Amino acid sequence: MSDHQHLMADMGQRARAAFAALSSVTSQQKAAALTAAASALRENETEILAANTKDMEKGRTEGLSDAMLDRLMIDKERLDAIASAVEQVASLPDPVGAIIDRNERPNGLIMERVRVPLGVIGIIYESRPNVTADAAALGLRSGNAVILRGGSEAIKSNRAIHKAMVEGVASAGLPEDAIQLVQTTDRAAVGAMLKASGLIDIIIPRGGKSLVARVQEEARVPVLAHLDGICHTYIGRAADPDKAIAIAVNAKMRRTGVCGAMETLLIDQDYPAPGPLLRALLDEGCEVRGDDAIMELDPRTVSAETEDWDTEYLAPIVSARMVGGIDEALTHIATHGSHHTDVVVTEDESVANQFIQRADSAIVMWNASSQFADGGEFGLGAEIGISTGRLHARGPVALEGLTTYKWVVRGTGQVRP
Amino acid sequence: MSDHQHLMADMGQRARAAFAALSSVTSQQKAAALTAAASALRENETEILAANTKDMEKGRTEGLSDAMLDRLMIDKERLDAIASAVEQVASLPDPVGAIIDRNERPNGLIMERVRVPLGVIGIIYESRPNVTADAAALGLRSGNAVILRGGSEAIKSNRAIHKAMVEGVASAGLPEDAIQLVQTTDRAAVGAMLKASGLIDIIIPRGGKSLVARVQEEARVPVLAHLDGICHTYIGRAADPDKAIAIAVNAKMRRTGVCGAMETLLIDQDYPAPGPLLRALLDEGCEVRGDDAIMELDPRTVSAETEDWDTEYLAPIVSARMVGGIDEALTHIATHGSHHTDVVVTEDESVANQFIQRADSAIVMWNASSQFADGGEFGLGAEIGISTGRLHARGPVALEGLTTYKWVVRGTGQVRP
Repeated sequence: MSDHQHLMADMGQRARAAFAALSSVTSQQKAAALTAAASALRENETEILAANTKDMEKGRTEGLSDAMLDRLMIDKERLDAIASAVEQVASLPDPVGAIIDRNERPNGLIMERVRVPLGVIGIIYESRPNVTADAAALGLRSGNAVILRGGSEAIKSNRAIHKAMVEGVASAGLPEDAIQLVQTTDRAAVGAMLKASGLIDIIIPRGGKSLVARVQEEARVPVLAHLDGICHTYIGRAADPDKAIAIAVNAKMRRTGVCGAMETLLIDQDYPAPGPLLRALLDEGCEVRGDDAIMELDPRTVSAETEDWDTEYLAPIVSARMVGGIDEALTHIATHGSHHTDVVVTEDESVANQFIQRADSAIVMWNASSQFADGGEFGLGAEIGISTGRLHARGPVALEGLTTYKWVVRGTGQVRP
Repeated sequence: MSDHQHLMADMGQRARAAFAALSSVTSQQKAAALTAAASALRENETEILAANTKDMEKGRTEGLSDAMLDRLMIDKERLDAIASAVEQVASLPDPVGAIIDRNERPNGLIMERVRVPLGVIGIIYESRPNVTADAAALGLRSGNAVILRGGSEAIKSNRAIHKAMVEGVASAGLPEDAIQLVQTTDRAAVGAMLKASGLIDIIIPRGGKSLVARVQEEARVPVLAHLDGICHTYIGRAADPDKAIAIAVNAKMRRTGVCGAMETLLIDQDYPAPGPLLRALLDEGCEVRGDDAIMELDPRTVSAETEDWDTEYLAPIVSARMVGGIDEALTHIATHGSHHTDVVVTEDESVANQFIQRADSAIVMWNASSQFADGGEFGLGAEIGISTGRLHARGPVALEGLTTYKWVVRGTGQVRP
């Protein structure tokens, strides 16, 4: 074993022991631990801001972009928001212990499926140090032990936040190893983490596409993530033109850098008002890359290349195509989509239901902006990520996605004939 | 790409197309297809039995054991049972379309989680040709496409059963590619299947430990399985002696070769009647391998070696240990168990609840025999396997475990502020 494998084996075993200890902790105790952790974040303000200043100085020296420096930066206000978010997670209902279903058998055995924590969760993330607190809080609220691995550019900030969180958790009598931070910034440690199968139950990457791609490629541990958010909006022939414009403009332009942003607009050839729809997007400053039929509608549109249909722009650019009907729209989505969020705009309920049934996306929406693809907007109270995988948890993932279940069988001495 | 990768890419793409087509098929149509498949199995009796006779002849020539030949053999009665099992699956409630939860947001958006099929399921199995029909039926009932890969010793039988199943499915208007059988017996095809990530959503191995171990080791696709069933029965100090004897003897001796069979007996040092318990097992012909405290109780017991605590005997042998209390019992299970099925026998409800909460097993039982670990006994109507993994589905897995969900969001033109 390499040093990093040894390190990860040691952290993994301590995490599993902490996870076992958490199995006899009540929901109240977990909430109290998080409240204490939030207080500790506030009490350690000086230390955390000083650590962050050092990260920022190093980042400037090393030439990090302004955008990256902004993601890295913590001031008094941001630290307060981080602590408040931890308190907010403490107040969320604990999914653990809920009975999913119950079944009494003719022989008197009672079978229940009961929600239990998932186990040990590995989080691999980049610059934003708030993830250290966020992910630890979501993991602990649902009874899991977490192993956190942040970006090297934020290591001092992450250490300071982690130290405060652990201080709070320990003061409430919970095991310190429930929240561990990988202290080394060596990239090989990530490799060891991705292969720690049997110790880490699931890896959740939070960051850019290259991070997610590396994790998905190398992991021997299940990964919960989405690589792309190539979200489509299909404007049906019976779409209401006002709704179509409002939804398409919002889905593309509200924030262009989020995974729920529309990247491709599919317009039914029988939709009566495609011109005003394209105009609205163009007038908002969106570049429209269209097929021939689209380009005939407005001289400001440009020609789409083959790769446009598979591109997540995360920018004020949209690819646009005229389609012959719902079948062609669904075929386009099946061919080019990323199973994230796809939208149908129509006043025809039967078309909407067909789209809902046949689009193979984690989230399908009818007459709403794809920018709603977010755990908070879904009423989950928080979000650890969005999954485009098919197993375990799909779409926005919050506390329930960090649990599994066990079967509890209660008998009175039954034996099997 | 190798030939096998080409083959699997082709089968995978055809399976995905069939899966997409299945998304607009009703529950009634799926049931009708399975009923037709069952009829086709009966109608093709001559062909199937002839194919099986050839497999049996080849098996005898190649020196297969009697046990393997028995697993391979199909006669009129067994074929009837296979067809009846398919009809039984057709009659099970379809999990697809069920609404898991529903949430109306203040902005009027309605969020529902709706059960949908998982996708493309790969089944890798050994000698028993009935799995060809079983697995195909369970997969199709829940709207999935399946790719089946059986053992080379049963290839002619599997081909004949598969042909009949497809005939039935096609006659009901469903896509033939919903049920595909890997026609080559080359082992490299399994390797290609295990790496067909993006085409196959989940692999379910059904067979002996070496098959499961290979699949878990090599797969780049999620695997649903259990490697070991090292099941424990902990006899608490407050156990009822009659129940303790009945449960332990049944858990061990009813059928020793099943994954739910007890392999280790943990007796609380304060349990008043350990002698009669051991005697009952010994009298039934069970070999008892004990620690020193156990060996003092009966001269017929033998000494357990270190590896006994980690051994799944699948034979009339049990390892037995005296433990200081529930903590020691749970520590033993955490150290040596396989997260399959673990049992507590006690009349003390608080001890039972502690065990239920703290034992990290897919199935925890109170006062019942671990031999109940079976989907049929759990009321699931069928079983495709038992999972000791923590994600997606745990314990006995039937139709619901072959589904996932999608989020369906219904709006009236909402855009995100």
